Amino acid sequence: MERMTDLVVHDAAQVVTPTGGGDGDGSDDELEVIENGAVAIEDGIVVAVGPTTDVTRAHPPENATESVDATGRTVLPGFVDPHTHAVFAGDRVDEFTAKLAGASYQDILEEGGGILRTVRATREAERAELVANLLEHLDTMLAHGTTTVEVKSGYGLDVETELKLLEAIDEAADQHPIDVVPTFMGAHAVPEGADTEEYVDRVIEEQLPAVADAGLAEFCDVFCEAGVFSVSQSRRILEAGQELGLTPKIHAEEFERLGGSQLAADCGAASADHLLQATDEDIEALGEAGVTPVLLPGTAFSLGAPYADAAAFEAADVPVALATDFNPNCFSQSMESVVELACNGMRMTPAAAIRGATSIAARAVDRTDGTGTIREGAPGDLAIATVTNYQHIPYNFGVSNVQTVITDGTVVHRD
Amino acid sequence: MERMTDLVVHDAAQVVTPTGGGDGDGSDDELEVIENGAVAIEDGIVVAVGPTTDVTRAHPPENATESVDATGRTVLPGFVDPHTHAVFAGDRVDEFTAKLAGASYQDILEEGGGILRTVRATREAERAELVANLLEHLDTMLAHGTTTVEVKSGYGLDVETELKLLEAIDEAADQHPIDVVPTFMGAHAVPEGADTEEYVDRVIEEQLPAVADAGLAEFCDVFCEAGVFSVSQSRRILEAGQELGLTPKIHAEEFERLGGSQLAADCGAASADHLLQATDEDIEALGEAGVTPVLLPGTAFSLGAPYADAAAFEAADVPVALATDFNPNCFSQSMESVVELACNGMRMTPAAAIRGATSIAARAVDRTDGTGTIREGAPGDLAIATVTNYQHIPYNFGVSNVQTVITDGTVVHRD
Ligand SMILES: [Zn+2]
Ligand SMILES: [Zn+2]
Repeated sequence: MERMTDLVVHDAAQVVTPTGGGDGDGSDDELEVIENGAVAIEDGIVVAVGPTTDVTRAHPPENATESVDATGRTVLPGFVDPHTHAVFAGDRVDEFTAKLAGASYQDILEEGGGILRTVRATREAERAELVANLLEHLDTMLAHGTTTVEVKSGYGLDVETELKLLEAIDEAADQHPIDVVPTFMGAHAVPEGADTEEYVDRVIEEQLPAVADAGLAEFCDVFCEAGVFSVSQSRRILEAGQELGLTPKIHAEEFERLGGSQLAADCGAASADHLLQATDEDIEALGEAGVTPVLLPGTAFSLGAPYADAAAFEAADVPVALATDFNPNCFSQSMESVVELACNGMRMTPAAAIRGATSIAARAVDRTDGTGTIREGAPGDLAIATVTNYQHIPYNFGVSNVQTVITDGTVVHRD
Repeated sequence: MERMTDLVVHDAAQVVTPTGGGDGDGSDDELEVIENGAVAIEDGIVVAVGPTTDVTRAHPPENATESVDATGRTVLPGFVDPHTHAVFAGDRVDEFTAKLAGASYQDILEEGGGILRTVRATREAERAELVANLLEHLDTMLAHGTTTVEVKSGYGLDVETELKLLEAIDEAADQHPIDVVPTFMGAHAVPEGADTEEYVDRVIEEQLPAVADAGLAEFCDVFCEAGVFSVSQSRRILEAGQELGLTPKIHAEEFERLGGSQLAADCGAASADHLLQATDEDIEALGEAGVTPVLLPGTAFSLGAPYADAAAFEAADVPVALATDFNPNCFSQSMESVVELACNGMRMTPAAAIRGATSIAARAVDRTDGTGTIREGAPGDLAIATVTNYQHIPYNFGVSNVQTVITDGTVVHRD
């Protein structure tokens, strides 16, 4: 008896997928383009990808539960966004405007603004409000093609609120088709009035054990930066997390080159993120240790600041992942926009940007099941764009080309 | 008997409009914000704007032909895009990718690329194809809130094709709700193999009279740039156009400071555009002559190049218009994206950017009927965004917040 196919996407102008990615097997990903392509999905898993004639012979669209005629469109793996701070309360648009009107970072702090304002609003918020906010952001992410997203806690900075945030992530994840990867980031900032060293102790002695106990996080992240957490403080936190089963991640070399990349390499972090000040030595260390660099062009864009040096990573043959860094200071949920910024702003090629937003990004969140690729056995997560060639996605900037999004073989968004 | 209202938009979180704009009365536009606002439109013209309670007392939504509940949303004037090259044939995405892979401008020219490639494709295209292409771009513009757009010819560079382009603009305008402003730009480039001085003669002796005869253009534009048309050649073309009733516009000081701003001031141009190399003296000359400067941040963005110095115009109290410059080298149709680039990239305030994309932009295309504002007597052109505060539009970059678009009092787009 013939097995029923859940979904067939057929007659796409292009089906585009990184090859060799998503399994941590090195830096030699290529972007494969199948003209007039098709994809078949069963039980949420890709079972066939190739030319439409081949795929539809084995999986006739008329026998599938659902079929999508992708004529004139391009099919990509769903985007993987490996760095967001998407769960918080409050609105800081007034700080955006104040900065554009000339206010300094110091002015904004003196007005009670900045990250600690989000911390105050988030501590006061009910979990239900945080879940509702996060679900709204997940909807916007999905509409722009994201099917896997990492979300960090870190606007609590005390054990109760950090747990509340991770519970909110868990609850939103249960209700939403996006695959959500939870990260604990108690070491996102030093709380108001606290001594840094004492706060590091609290992260290690109170927060980390409670988080590990609750089983609510896969990763432990830390903001390793001058005036925030030093390399040795970051190391203590990441090693303590690691002992409890949380894989390290790190915010490194954003404003100053402090040594976070080397720490990431030493402790086998999944990713080192930002890297605006990273040196060739840092890049080499990350590459050799298999730590995935994550570049965040939206952060630079919203600050009107220079981008990370993507060409230096390319020259060192260390492929980079891309992420939104979505947070109240960098308010964009769209990975499609990140691909545009990566090409137009950081001058990456469309192929490198698409890989960075899919297969390489999957490495940064340790997804080794084929996430970020379209190949047999990979999760059936697809983004379909109204373009005949994937290069049009960054070329046609400022416009959302993603139209249809599929997770686990089900159409979950259609414009 | 009570007069029937065509459209009432009510209960908007904000109705936002420039004041004093659109009528060329100077640089003192402010952005007025009406909380819980409403707009009523009759016969395509705004008849009331103000607090919802006031507007709906005189114009009850239940008596209107159509009503829009804008709860939680922000109502703006439809965007005015005063600089596009939106009518052409062919696809140059491969050049975008080649440049990102390291090809120089010279490499691309040697491969037969660049503007003259678009000219070849456009000459070969049937008018119907050009109309269809333009209509598709107008749809994308409309979906992002543009209700008035200037479109230049200039990919013909001979009398037949320039006329074909202006006819295509005219035909598309007839079929589309966007208000299209046609500009003749035979002096967009020097055709292959031609002598510049001889080509200037042809523009003046053949093209301009034919265009004026056909009544197909309001403006005459010229690319005044080193290696293209000199200041004296530009002056000859603009003055010849002026004698035939076409108002001058100019591409000035983009790559080199040649003196196009001073020429614009001398001949009373409606606008001077690009202005990346403009000096304080140039800015002052434009301000004194009442020439509207048009900044094009998308052009810089897509080149990975520095933006125009918006702060210098602000310091001189000369307000700037914003435009997409949509063309095969700067492939974005979205004025919403231009507002994002203006704030995040050029560091303009949200208020200055919204004015630049509405009332000041209307000046750049000589629309003095209130276009780009929401006030009694202005055209009933509105964009409604899914935000509670207009500042969220550039803050939430990379995401399209415009949801509903109204032209002449009719809902013509809804997401
Ligand atoms: Zn971050
Ligand atoms: Zn132009």
